[in-house]
Amino acid sequence: MKKGLMLVISGPAGSGKGTVNAHLFKTGDFVYSVSATTRAPRPAEVDGVNYHFISKEDFLSRIEHGDMLEYTEYCGNFYGTPLKEAEEVLASGKNLILEIEVEGAENVKKKYPDAVLVLLLPPSYAVQEQRLRGRGTETEEKITERLARAKEEIAHASSYDYVVYNYDGKDAEAAEQILAIVSAEKCSLARNTSVAEDYLKV
Amino acid sequence: MKKGLMLVISGPAGSGKGTVNAHLFKTGDFVYSVSATTRAPRPAEVDGVNYHFISKEDFLSRIEHGDMLEYTEYCGNFYGTPLKEAEEVLASGKNLILEIEVEGAENVKKKYPDAVLVLLLPPSYAVQEQRLRGRGTETEEKITERLARAKEEIAHASSYDYVVYNYDGKDAEAAEQILAIVSAEKCSLARNTSVAEDYLKV
Repeated sequence: MKKGLMLVISGPAGSGKGTVNAHLFKTGDFVYSVSATTRAPRPAEVDGVNYHFISKEDFLSRIEHGDMLEYTEYCGNFYGTPLKEAEEVLASGKNLILEIEVEGAENVKKKYPDAVLVLLLPPSYAVQEQRLRGRGTETEEKITERLARAKEEIAHASSYDYVVYNYDGKDAEAAEQILAIVSAEKCSLARNTSVAEDYLKV
Repeated sequence: MKKGLMLVISGPAGSGKGTVNAHLFKTGDFVYSVSATTRAPRPAEVDGVNYHFISKEDFLSRIEHGDMLEYTEYCGNFYGTPLKEAEEVLASGKNLILEIEVEGAENVKKKYPDAVLVLLLPPSYAVQEQRLRGRGTETEEKITERLARAKEEIAHASSYDYVVYNYDGKDAEAAEQILAIVSAEKCSLARNTSVAEDYLKV
């Protein structure tokens, strides 16, 4: 059984990450890594599906025991990826999607150089702003905070392996682009070090 | 206009390189780099289409003047890629396919680290042998020579960026795999160094 690919997808607010990832999950080849968090669940969120909602105490203890693949603190809350769950998915041959922020992404790459880091972006900052305001669900303060955050994140673009743009109404195309990346990575020589050996064996 | 990708495709005899490449050309995004050679044309070959058939004198003079992107000597004949032609294609935004042997591929990568090197292989050495004998068009001596050559080439697999297998009757899938590689490479951060800058500009 060939190991799955660890795929980190970061996308700022307004990148349409959820919609794009939904296309990936439909293929059946991807498994979502459910993050652990210390923040309170939002109304529609289900424990173990959207997040593992755990206490700060529990979270800090897991860090201490090396049970977190990566973690980050954001707006006063901890977010992280439970290590054991990630390893089980990869061993099963499925690709693991980690939806994490830039600091987490950089930490994963340090720990797992084999991880593939994809930055999903709206076509431009102007479009991003439009999308966030268009939602009409957040306060001006929240929007300003998210946009400032997005500017910080884009400064780290060079930490990623690939950049994919999600144009208006083109989320299926963005997902196709990510599938092409996964497909290419799987046949890279870096991931297939025994090509010559295997070829001559049969 | 975004520059095209320089795509080196090497495939030993029996890899089905011609059939796979035909699928790529059908997309209209690829241009074949016509090699120059000093060997005599085979009956069906057309000058300027299959090869630029030139004299040894002319070939050596071009090497001397730096007019060859790469060249190699094989079975007593020279084969090489005229530099000017390659540069014109890339500047037009089309992807350039170089069908060259392993030494040439390695030389291109040294001169143009941006080139993407794909090794196209039959599923195994055993299948390769079957395919070559199945053709029934070559002498036993030629077949033995080609198979020995293939073994030499496979030892250089690690010089390539990607390996793609051409399974029996699956040449369209092999071509799809190469298209995925091109698509992924085009959105790599290594090729898009001004992502942050461009994003904030608009």
